[in-house]
Order: sequence, then structure tokens, then C-alpha cells
Amino acid sequence: MSEQNRGKAKKRGVVMQVEDIQICVVMVGLPARGKSLIAQKAQRYLRWLSVDANVFNVGNYRRDANPQPTADFFDTSNAEGERMRRAAAEAAVTDMLKWFKGGGTVGILDATNSTKERRRWIKERCDAEGIETLYVESKCDDEDLIMSNILEVKTTSPDYVGQDPETAAQDFRKRIRNYEKVYQTIDEDENDLTYVKIMNVGKQVIINRIQDYLQSRVVYYLMNLHIKPRSIWLSRHGESQYNETGQIGGDAELSANGEMYSRKLPKMVRDSVGDDRPLTVWTSTLKRTISTAKHLPKEYNQLQWKALDELDAGVCDGLTYAEIEEQYPEDFKARDDDKYNYRYRGGESYRDVVIRLEPIIMELERSEDILIITHQAVLRCIYAYFMKKSQEDSPWMAVPLHTLIKLTPRAYGTEEQRYKANIPAVSTWRSKGSVAKHEDAPPDDAQSI
Amino acid sequence: MSEQNRGKAKKRGVVMQVEDIQICVVMVGLPARGKSLIAQKAQRYLRWLSVDANVFNVGNYRRDANPQPTADFFDTSNAEGERMRRAAAEAAVTDMLKWFKGGGTVGILDATNSTKERRRWIKERCDAEGIETLYVESKCDDEDLIMSNILEVKTTSPDYVGQDPETAAQDFRKRIRNYEKVYQTIDEDENDLTYVKIMNVGKQVIINRIQDYLQSRVVYYLMNLHIKPRSIWLSRHGESQYNETGQIGGDAELSANGEMYSRKLPKMVRDSVGDDRPLTVWTSTLKRTISTAKHLPKEYNQLQWKALDELDAGVCDGLTYAEIEEQYPEDFKARDDDKYNYRYRGGESYRDVVIRLEPIIMELERSEDILIITHQAVLRCIYAYFMKKSQEDSPWMAVPLHTLIKLTPRAYGTEEQRYKANIPAVSTWRSKGSVAKHEDAPPDDAQSI
Repeated sequence: MSEQNRGKAKKRGVVMQVEDIQICVVMVGLPARGKSLIAQKAQRYLRWLSVDANVFNVGNYRRDANPQPTADFFDTSNAEGERMRRAAAEAAVTDMLKWFKGGGTVGILDATNSTKERRRWIKERCDAEGIETLYVESKCDDEDLIMSNILEVKTTSPDYVGQDPETAAQDFRKRIRNYEKVYQTIDEDENDLTYVKIMNVGKQVIINRIQDYLQSRVVYYLMNLHIKPRSIWLSRHGESQYNETGQIGGDAELSANGEMYSRKLPKMVRDSVGDDRPLTVWTSTLKRTISTAKHLPKEYNQLQWKALDELDAGVCDGLTYAEIEEQYPEDFKARDDDKYNYRYRGGESYRDVVIRLEPIIMELERSEDILIITHQAVLRCIYAYFMKKSQEDSPWMAVPLHTLIKLTPRAYGTEEQRYKANIPAVSTWRSKGSVAKHEDAPPDDAQSI
Repeated sequence: MSEQNRGKAKKRGVVMQVEDIQICVVMVGLPARGKSLIAQKAQRYLRWLSVDANVFNVGNYRRDANPQPTADFFDTSNAEGERMRRAAAEAAVTDMLKWFKGGGTVGILDATNSTKERRRWIKERCDAEGIETLYVESKCDDEDLIMSNILEVKTTSPDYVGQDPETAAQDFRKRIRNYEKVYQTIDEDENDLTYVKIMNVGKQVIINRIQDYLQSRVVYYLMNLHIKPRSIWLSRHGESQYNETGQIGGDAELSANGEMYSRKLPKMVRDSVGDDRPLTVWTSTLKRTISTAKHLPKEYNQLQWKALDELDAGVCDGLTYAEIEEQYPEDFKARDDDKYNYRYRGGESYRDVVIRLEPIIMELERSEDILIITHQAVLRCIYAYFMKKSQEDSPWMAVPLHTLIKLTPRAYGTEEQRYKANIPAVSTWRSKGSVAKHEDAPPDDAQSI
């Protein structure tokens, strides 16, 4: 292994033992089977784990040539349509292979890829470059699911922008029928391929010839996705005694203001949920999060996770930023220069926190309504996953105390609402270079309740 | 949720979010398809994660009545055989349900369960008690795999103890043919069941209706098993400067003796591997493990895992045991009383370390030859998984410095070899109550090289 590759393996390997593997994830399925949703989520998850991932959407390439085709365009007897769609696939695959040459790790080819011939062609192109292929077929015969996807598509697809919704839905159904004429599901003929077939959003899953760790992680992630409506509530603990003094880390109890927040939280949560159904509550193992949860109704099942504990500041635990700058000036500067990757001596970096949060994210994907009470850095990492924040920005994000955040995953992105408790608290946000004990964060648009 | 259940959920939930779920894992498959191996491994994995799991082997119940039956006993036209086998299944299921009543979490019913009718009967029995069922079918048409399993069975099964191996093998093949006559694989008729079908040791896997987190963990674990021959080498870092002074934790460099060990390690590893094939090396992120690996051949791909860092001693980091006893006498005693569960203030317990090692174990199951250079507590936890050590004993186990351990998983257990470097090192083993700086560990049977 060359020195360069060794470096690469190390960098990637912190999360994923991937060495020099490159994988093309080939989506397979009729329109309105959630392929783009799966592709986008897989990309987001992998990028959050520092795996270089990119979606290549063949529809976007086709739209360059024909922005708003009618269903006839997708009829296999339409030679001109066939030629253009084939050209779009060629262009997408060519761009993807170029991207792999530049060092990309997981390229996701988002298209119907509905015939065996087309899938074989992609495999040959990838084989020639030493790139593994993993086919992900989404099959669905649940009419309700398909209809809700059609509804989604006709209102969000650029193919139907500005068109009458009813006409768009009709045309889209016709397009699906054109694809159905030639669609071939993955079957025994293709058992030499590495594939996963997901039926009705995970009700049944078939996994064939998974070879390595990265493939198995992607498949496990896809297995855990569901599309039942739900929300995730995030809150930091109430203000702690350490927050008041500007010290980081530690295991301090709540301040008087923090106590007030813990008493107000149950009503804030109930108002936000909108009904009486109980949530599951996850806290860290530290006193300030457990105390913040203590007035929640007994019907709320509570779970303590060590993985939700605050970023470990190592030798700096218990210090103020002014003390850190004084005692460890080089560390203070190094952290400001690259906050995501800086690891406290004997402690952790944001990158380390993301690794230990991975099982939490996997559980969140499986779960329905959850309320998480945790810490500033940990909340930033969880938030970054759902809201697609970059590694550069997320460690600097303002997450005020005494604020409840509600995240609701939707097909294309996550909706956010913030509720302020209107209970005073210090700000623990810090701008680059600052050693202020408390400093105002940039204003946010939380609603007061 | 009652207070008692809440406590139970909390205790279990640290690793697995299970609440009050109880699962019966029902093995399905012809003889010699690796069912018992899968059952045993799943039990070991779950127990290591503090999930109460137990295997109920129907063959053991049948042997009470008929210790060494011939193949005719398993012929469906043999009414007496049928009656006795049915009675054995009844007895095993009854015992299992009794065990669930006592609070067991995962009961594994190890038998062929080869007909739809039998599987339906088990489901009805479990449904009546509110216990989930998860069917695990092992199918295999790879003749080599089956033959090696037959070979294994005829030499290890109590059914053939003391018999001529050739006769035993023939009888066993006849028994398999009797089962084949009535065997029904799980198919679409049973799509209301939660099941996983594993074909040819994971080449293809079908997963149907997985409902909750614990089921998904078990399935993911089973997906990752393989039976290719391989070994895992474990070593602690070379003696460190902290080891010399009797301090725990920290991030010290190697002592002069530790340096010597790092220079001898490459030859020890090569001699133990027996050929020139390169291993993959995993270290922690701490200096003393990375330095220990530094003379290994460049062909060995190296990976640093934060999850392999030593147990975090929190406020006691950098202290000697004498200092801990002096400064934190209650903690010192509490740790001796329950070393597995004791969590250092601001640090970790052995239980915490097991949780963060779970992804490492999963990767080890997927991987082939790996050399792990890590720390005393972490090595004890990994060793406990492979060698089935109890939570009570594993934290007290002697793992001397400057010793290479080779573990080779076999069908029924793990083989162990130890190689001493014969380079002096202090002992870091400590008996209950002791504050000695260095204390001799009980003798072990490592071979010197």
C-alpha cells in the first residue's frame, strides 16, 4: 500500500474500514418508488461520516436536453426519446467515473435502471475501472405508498413545475405505465450481482453477495429507514452551574434558571407534540441532562446513553476558555483553526463525537417520536446530520439554552421549529478567537412560548 | 411503565433499546446447516451485551429419552420416533416459556423446525405469552459446506459418541435424507412471520418484517458471520512509562523495555502467522499502542480506532492505585465490589467499554486476519467476547504485558495460544483490595518464544 493510500485509509478508517474501496450504488425501480429519497439520505449519512459520497441523477442530465417531456417521451417505441434517455445515462455515468478518478468513494446513480441490459452495462463500465457495484432496488406494490409518492413528485419535480397538478399526476401515471412495460425486477439471473431489494419500504429485504464493510453499512442503514410520520425533539440540558461560571465539561447540577427550565419543559413538549401520546426520552449519563428530564410525565420511558455525553475536553475539562487560552495557547489556536478535527488532549474532537453518535443516528432512523436531552456539541452533531450542515459550520452553530427544537423529516429535507422557554440563561456560544465568559450568539428565529 | 420495568429498561437500554421486548429466535433448517453454531454465537454475543439470552436445544431433550438413536428414528413413518420427537419439542418449548416468565429476553430454540405446521405451533405458543418470534432459517446447497458440517457433527455430536466415524457419517446422511422428505423451506405462505433466511452462510439473505431494534441487531449480527478460517491476534502495547511508575490512564510513551517489545513484535507475529501474508493492524489512538506497531512491515495496513482507547479513568486518570485509595476511598472500594459496573467519576466502566467495542466486534466478525494492539481493559473485553468470560471474572483477568495472544474461532469455541516475548515488564495486574504498585499475576501457560 502506498504512503498516500495508507494516509487515505487512516483518514477514512476512523469511521469506516474502507481502505481503497470505491462503490457505485445503482438505484433500481419504477418511478415513484422513493429512489431519490433513498439516494439523498444515503448521501447525507455517508457525508456526515466523512465518506465522500455523491448522487448522479440521470433525470437532471435528461432535463438539460428536454426540461419538461410528456409521458410519450418515456415510451420505448419513441426512438428519439430512447436515444436521448440513453445519452443522459451515458453522460451521468461518464461524469461519475470521472468523479471516482478524482478519489470519490460512494457514487450513487439515481435512475430507474429498469432493464437487466442497462444494469449489466453499468456493471461493465464500473468493472473496467475497478469500482464495485451495489444495486439497490426499491419495489412497492402498496398503492397508498405509491400514490403518496406520486403526489410528492408532481408537486416537487422540476418536470412538472408550473403545470396543473391534476394533469401532471395523470401524465406521471402514464409515464410509470411506460416504464412498467419494460421493467425487469432483479432476479436469480442476476445473482452474480451484489444487490439489495427493498420491498414496501423494508417490509421485506433481500440481500445478495454483500462483500465488504462499507457495503454492509450502507445496506444496514437502508434496512433501517422508514417513512412513518414522526418528529424528533432536541433540547440542551437546562442552564448548569458550570454554564454560569463559564467552565466547560464537568458534571455540574442545574442552576436555579436551569431548574426553572426543567419544570417548564413538560408543558413545552406537550404543546409541541399536540396530543397526549408519550414520547421516549433519551438523556446522557450526566446529571444536568437527567435533572432536566426529571419533571417529564412518568409515562415517558427514559433511557440514558453514554454516547450522548458531552464532547470530552480531556485536560481542559472544568476550565474556562480564558484559562484554556492561558494554559494551552497552542491548543486554543489549533481548535479555532479546525474545530471539527481538533481533539482535546486526552479528550475528543467533533469527529470523534460523530463516530460515537452513529449508533444513535441508526436508532433514530428506526424510531418514531423521540425527545433527546443532551449537550451543546452533541446536539450540533445530531442537528448536522438531519439538517445537512457542513463539518466546517456545525461546530460553530448557535444552539441556545432553554430552547426546544423540533425536527420533522420529510421526503425532501427536514422541517425545523424552535420554541423558546423565555427563561433567562447565559449564552455558551463562542465566536472564533473569543475568550469571553459569555457572549451573545447571532440572533435566531425561534418562536417564544 | 412500572418502576420495576423502568429499571429493567434502563439497565438493558444502555446497550440495546429493548424496553419489555422478549423474543423467541426459532432456528429452522436441515441437520448440518450450522444451526447450533449460529444459536451459540448469537447467545454469546447477546450475553456479552448484557442481554439475557439462552439456547434451548431440542436434541438434548430428545437424548434424555433416546441417547443414541439411528436414522430410522427420524423417519416420519416411525410413529414412536415421531411421538418422542414431538414430546422433546414440547418439553423444550415449555421450559423456554417458563424461562421467559422469569424475565429472559432472547430464547433461542435450536431444532430443525422443518415444517410449516411446527413453526406455526411455536408461534401460537409464543403469541399466547406476548413473546415475539423471529425465525432464522439456514439453507445451504453448497456440498462442501454440508460435508464439512457432517464431519464436524459426527466427531462432536453426543448422538455418535464412541461410534465408528464412517458408520456415524453414513447414519447421519441417512438422517438428513429423512428430514429432507418433509422439509418445507420458509416461503410466501409465511410472509406474516418475522424471519431471516440465510443462504450458503450469508451469500444471500432474505429479511422479512423485522419490527424492532433488538430484532434488527440480531439480524445484522447474523448477516455478518462468516466461516472462513482466520485468526485474531491480540497484544497490549509495550510497557509504558506510566506502567513503570504504576500510574493508570494517561498518554505516555513506551519505556525502554516497551521499545524492545515493539522491535520484537514483527518477528513474533510473523512466526505465529506462519507465512508472509500481511495482516491488518488496529491500534488505539494513544501513543503507546501506535509506537508498539511502528516496526511492523509497511505491507500491514494500519488503522487507529478511538474505540480501542483504554478505559477512561476520569478524575483518577494519571493516579496510582495507592493515590486513588487515598483520595477516593469510597470509589476504590466500590470498584472492587463490582468492577464490571463501577464507572469512574467522569470516566467509564467496563460495561461502557463493551458498548463502545460493539462495532469493533461486528467488524471482527466480518473480517479475516487482524492484529489488535490495545490496552488492558479493552483487551479483557474483547477476550471475554471470544472466550465467553463472565462479567464477574473478565475485569480481573491477567493479561500480561509483552505477550501475544492468538485466537482462532472454531465451530464450537475459540482456540487460544499465547506467546511470551521474554522481555521484562512490570505486572499491571492487581488483586482485589490491593494498592501495590506492581504485583505478580497468577501464573499463566503462555509459551515462550
